[in-house]
Amino acid sequence: MKTGMVIGKVWATKRLDELPGGALLEIALEENDGLGEHLVAYDPLGAGDGERVLVTQGSVARGWFKDGKVVIDALVIGILDQPRTPPKKTR
Amino acid sequence: MKTGMVIGKVWATKRLDELPGGALLEIALEENDGLGEHLVAYDPLGAGDGERVLVTQGSVARGWFKDGKVVIDALVIGILDQPRTPPKKTR
Amino acid sequence: MKTGMVIGKVWATKRLDELPGGALLEIALEENDGLGEHLVAYDPLGAGDGERVLVTQGSVARGWFKDGKVVIDALVIGILDQPRTPPKKTR
Amino acid sequence: MKTGMVIGKVWATKRLDELPGGALLEIALEENDGLGEHLVAYDPLGAGDGERVLVTQGSVARGWFKDGKVVIDALVIGILDQPRTPPKKTR
Amino acid sequence: MKTGMVIGKVWATKRLDELPGGALLEIALEENDGLGEHLVAYDPLGAGDGERVLVTQGSVARGWFKDGKVVIDALVIGILDQPRTPPKKTR
Repeated sequence: MKTGMVIGKVWATKRLDELPGGALLEIALEENDGLGEHLVAYDPLGAGDGERVLVTQGSVARGWFKDGKVVIDALVIGILDQPRTPPKKTR
Repeated sequence: MKTGMVIGKVWATKRLDELPGGALLEIALEENDGLGEHLVAYDPLGAGDGERVLVTQGSVARGWFKDGKVVIDALVIGILDQPRTPPKKTR
Repeated sequence: MKTGMVIGKVWATKRLDELPGGALLEIALEENDGLGEHLVAYDPLGAGDGERVLVTQGSVARGWFKDGKVVIDALVIGILDQPRTPPKKTR
Repeated sequence: MKTGMVIGKVWATKRLDELPGGALLEIALEENDGLGEHLVAYDPLGAGDGERVLVTQGSVARGWFKDGKVVIDALVIGILDQPRTPPKKTR
Repeated sequence: MKTGMVIGKVWATKRLDELPGGALLEIALEENDGLGEHLVAYDPLGAGDGERVLVTQGSVARGWFKDGKVVIDALVIGILDQPRTPPKKTR
């Protein structure tokens, strides 16, 4: 899984029926030197802007839904308790 | 999922039968500092050049098709309502 | 999917039986500023050196084969009609 | 698989039921020039801070669990016997 | 698939039962400008240090094993016949 910070939401009026209703969060993934890659994840937990979340990806994300035709490949599976610690010097 | 901007189409006359007819869009994925990686996604929604789209990847994209032999690994699942906001300073 | 240019072939005499006979092309993937990551894909279409191809990856590539034990994770699914246009300034 | 060093744990009180109880380790993956990308993996083996671990990812990680709805996409599958050797000059 | 050079082995005495016995090779993947990302792959072919190998990844690697609970996500599927040619100028 990856950790990331919620930085916003996206809306798509024109969409496939297999994209379920619900929050689509824009998330900046955390890397050792700050925030990096952006992705969009489906959020069943109600995370807000600035919160740190745990995200699972790929067919594992889709597998959480009962409907096997759902087109979600990234899912918020937890809201982290801790604030982010300053990046560790790991390089 | 990833957000990206449509930058063109690709055509392949010589192709596998399991590559379905329909639009194959060239998309530049959005990163926090601009546009990055390019990929090609199947588009059932009719997105045009310059539009922002939401893309799902891997076996989740293929799972949308009824035919399990389809060779699509990237699918446009929504057209975003919002124009892209200027890149946030997240680093 | 990704677009790439064929830059050669690889041969492996010592191999698993589940690696099917046929061309294994070395391909340089196209990025917005030129050619980037290299990968090896199985090619049922007969693409030649210097041709531009469309490649699908992961379990979607394997799913094309009748035999579920095949160990192919990248597959050429089309030969592009267009020559590559000069890289667009997307950054 | 990837090798990495355990650098901490994450906790999520607010979580999906399909995220099993147990240790969620923060791991810095090893690259040829030091430590790189961070990820979070489920650890059934009890690895401690500073230990080197072997991590499997994607649906292969989820496949280890009996429950097909589990949302884990990264799993510690071994604790390495050797300390890390100084990075090799491979570039 | 990816090509890479064998640069060593890893051992894990403390491990999951679903990690099969056999060689776990450390491999440096080949990129157009030299050797890049490191990964660990299960090797049923007996490749030695310095040999060039072809590696398949993800659920395709796991699918080669009879036991669906195996936690292998990278597999050596061939030993390349050719020595590596000097990197091509593709950028």
